[in-house]
Amino acid sequence: MTDFGFVQNAAGRKVPTVVNGKPQPPFQGVGAFQPSGSKAAPPIRSCQDYPADGDKRLPDLRTALERCGLRDGMTLSSHHHLRNGDRVALEALQVAGELGVKDLIWFPSASFPCHEPVIDLMNQGVVHHIEGSMNGPLGRYTSQGEMRGLGVLRSHGGRWQAIQDGDVHIDIAVIAAPTADPFGNANGSHGPSACGSLGFALADSIYADHVIVVTDNLVPFPCIPWQIQGNNVDYVVEVDSIGDPSKIVSGTTQITKSPDRLLIAEYVARFVRDAGIMKDGFSFQAGAGGIALAFAQFLKEMMKDAGVKARFVRGGSTQYLVEMMEEGLTDYILDGQTFDLAAVESIATHPHHIPTSPFTSYNYHGKGNFASMVDAVVLGATEVDVNFNGNVNTHSDGVLLHGIGGWQNCLFSACTILAVPAVRDRIPVLVEEVTTITGPGELIDVVVTERGIAINPLRTDLLDAVEGSDLPIRPIQEIKEEVESIIGGKPEAPQLIDRPVAVIKWVDGTVLDTVWQIAD
Amino acid sequence: MTDFGFVQNAAGRKVPTVVNGKPQPPFQGVGAFQPSGSKAAPPIRSCQDYPADGDKRLPDLRTALERCGLRDGMTLSSHHHLRNGDRVALEALQVAGELGVKDLIWFPSASFPCHEPVIDLMNQGVVHHIEGSMNGPLGRYTSQGEMRGLGVLRSHGGRWQAIQDGDVHIDIAVIAAPTADPFGNANGSHGPSACGSLGFALADSIYADHVIVVTDNLVPFPCIPWQIQGNNVDYVVEVDSIGDPSKIVSGTTQITKSPDRLLIAEYVARFVRDAGIMKDGFSFQAGAGGIALAFAQFLKEMMKDAGVKARFVRGGSTQYLVEMMEEGLTDYILDGQTFDLAAVESIATHPHHIPTSPFTSYNYHGKGNFASMVDAVVLGATEVDVNFNGNVNTHSDGVLLHGIGGWQNCLFSACTILAVPAVRDRIPVLVEEVTTITGPGELIDVVVTERGIAINPLRTDLLDAVEGSDLPIRPIQEIKEEVESIIGGKPEAPQLIDRPVAVIKWVDGTVLDTVWQIAD
Repeated sequence: MTDFGFVQNAAGRKVPTVVNGKPQPPFQGVGAFQPSGSKAAPPIRSCQDYPADGDKRLPDLRTALERCGLRDGMTLSSHHHLRNGDRVALEALQVAGELGVKDLIWFPSASFPCHEPVIDLMNQGVVHHIEGSMNGPLGRYTSQGEMRGLGVLRSHGGRWQAIQDGDVHIDIAVIAAPTADPFGNANGSHGPSACGSLGFALADSIYADHVIVVTDNLVPFPCIPWQIQGNNVDYVVEVDSIGDPSKIVSGTTQITKSPDRLLIAEYVARFVRDAGIMKDGFSFQAGAGGIALAFAQFLKEMMKDAGVKARFVRGGSTQYLVEMMEEGLTDYILDGQTFDLAAVESIATHPHHIPTSPFTSYNYHGKGNFASMVDAVVLGATEVDVNFNGNVNTHSDGVLLHGIGGWQNCLFSACTILAVPAVRDRIPVLVEEVTTITGPGELIDVVVTERGIAINPLRTDLLDAVEGSDLPIRPIQEIKEEVESIIGGKPEAPQLIDRPVAVIKWVDGTVLDTVWQIAD
Repeated sequence: MTDFGFVQNAAGRKVPTVVNGKPQPPFQGVGAFQPSGSKAAPPIRSCQDYPADGDKRLPDLRTALERCGLRDGMTLSSHHHLRNGDRVALEALQVAGELGVKDLIWFPSASFPCHEPVIDLMNQGVVHHIEGSMNGPLGRYTSQGEMRGLGVLRSHGGRWQAIQDGDVHIDIAVIAAPTADPFGNANGSHGPSACGSLGFALADSIYADHVIVVTDNLVPFPCIPWQIQGNNVDYVVEVDSIGDPSKIVSGTTQITKSPDRLLIAEYVARFVRDAGIMKDGFSFQAGAGGIALAFAQFLKEMMKDAGVKARFVRGGSTQYLVEMMEEGLTDYILDGQTFDLAAVESIATHPHHIPTSPFTSYNYHGKGNFASMVDAVVLGATEVDVNFNGNVNTHSDGVLLHGIGGWQNCLFSACTILAVPAVRDRIPVLVEEVTTITGPGELIDVVVTERGIAINPLRTDLLDAVEGSDLPIRPIQEIKEEVESIIGGKPEAPQLIDRPVAVIKWVDGTVLDTVWQIAD
């Protein structure tokens, strides 16, 4: 491991100034870092070097990787729309290993437990390190200090920003496509392995030097819609299966049955209503977690009662959002990813269910994005501290177990609500200071627990809006102390070694925090 | 006017080596020029500099141009989807004139007679020169040597290539949008000034430093579909009218009534059938001219008789293509632009009527494009010579009167057919050598006239395919001589001065030919 210089950033965190050999600006405060220069740009190609009949098929992934000039030290990217059912990303890395290639950087939009065998590839030297969300086993491997390089965690928007700004140069993008044509046009909304949108792979297709599309559902040109454009694609590989459909999408997503969590969901919905956010033409985003789904159901009933219609809701979409649109409660679903079969069916067929990309929704280095136009967003967290800083990456024991996803990007909503139990598995969620800071408190407006609703004192407008309501508005410190008194004190401090294993990037590419190695 | 060095290029034409101060590679043969380097890239922006609520509206175009930092010598771009009904491009240039700005380069995707007042702006020094198709009056002005710089004519694909490769840097793009939202998402398929696709403005939106959307149909976010993405847009200006709808699209497009031209159209259709091109899953492209429309109708009947269905047809679309799709004779219409009301209605509502862009269809410096995947294309020409070279830009008197459009790009079709009368207004169309070479003969496979069908000797496969058919296959020289014997000899040579006024770019950015000033 190389030596590090460290600096204390504007969030008060100690962060490395060099990450994997590249200098990195520290976090300078929300909206403080001013980018300069021009976007990255891929090489100019020529039609004379591609088949005139548009047939870019090769017999297998091995041949395609060889044609792309795969060699030691390259950056290989993949996307996570197939989630824990993905077979393509791992195969690409394993084939690279069979070809004797070493020291690759794997740059997935996210990794899942199905990618655990990448640990073997890291132990063998095929993969040097991972830049991308590391959920589960790969996160634990990183926390234990086993990875050679530093993990770099970025939000969905931060990943686009990093590619677009040239912070990360992708040599070869491998795009698993539920439907594609021989030219490389591809979508995720059709085929036996349909996953919905392919938005997370869009930046890869535009900016990578070489792009391989892998599909198990080849259709004659033109593949419609072409969310991935064949004009950016070098090779197409047909395989029997790109993944396990049962793990790509859930048959159904489930609303929480926990009374505490149902109460949280109801508080959130009532807050959105009583603060005046729920009004004709409004918008909201909530994820696919149990609380978020329950919130959407509570809000839906309140919208019906009040005769209110949304202009748009943001996915991750599920059957619950689809039902809202079908019942006329929203004009549009603007969707980043689809979580269940009902949502996949809807995005494939409903003209108002629109796939988006991290470019439209989350890229902070664009001319605006959709995230800041959302009236209210409901998110989770592993920890929230008394300054409203949020953590979604590590647990209180310091272990890296989750990616950032769109979480950081969503914080720019007009009203950001963290819906969290005050206690999780007898560990308090409200803490004095988060183990890892994923989002600065100034962007987190409301924290809703089963023990009350804490409003960020910066949002005097929200405090005023719910004054006199029957909502249990309480100071965050008070809820935290109540929990501690019940479970017998503060949580134990994590046992960490003074050696960085990963960094948390902010949406503008600066380093917001460091993840430290855990003690054995 | 600056001095020019000249060189003879691979088409045997004398072309300048420097155009408007920039060195230019001469045409080197089809597929011979190898580009290098990376694509152009616009500046990195940041959300902190754009309104968080997504409202980018400004009161008027003047304010928007000022905010974009308009100054002398800048390049302003516009698109031609509003055709001869456009009000926005001229207004942008006139406002620039009112602001006292000089020496602009106007970079339209095409200009029309409605833009004739740009001549005044050129005489006043507001506009220095035009790079873009110059149809009608602006072409004549150029031919007369009145423009200060050299005109640069590019195909639709060549325009994308030039922007993408950095040959042309757009400072400010002004995009007239039939529908837009305050964030800048825009489309051409809806609203009172609907024109169909906005594909020609897409490169401008992606690569320009500053982008202004001008609309007369503002809708609440999100404007769906968003062919132009608001994430690339700086400002939105609402106006009463972006154009004259009656001149934006025709109520109906008209099939030729000329017996000669109907015969040509029938010959083309029979050739496509008898050469074996018309088979299940095939594709074709034909434009909106009278012969092309008649061809499509003849072919449609032949397809019905034979029970043949196309996989896709390429627009410019009209009611005739729309009817083909509605009757199940093609799976898809892949559309570059829409020429009549029926086509606009169809592209706005039919899920298999797909807008394309010059990137997908025509850009030669991509990883392939759609044009070479089309089985047969039917095009016109002002002149064709005995070596099958084609001219679409000048007339036999040497006057520049037409743009290139997609014509050059379409030549890469598997079978390129020029459907032309042998004589037009008593002037032969078949000549010894074209006045201006817009397309090299090696890419032109068949020339169909009312006096017979000439097949390029390079295409022995096509000659074999129609051997024994009752089609009037004849050598091109023989048809030419027959016409000359009837009308009394060859056409007069144009009276030209040895001073270049414009250049014709090939699809790869090299200079294919020069347009020379006409004698008074």
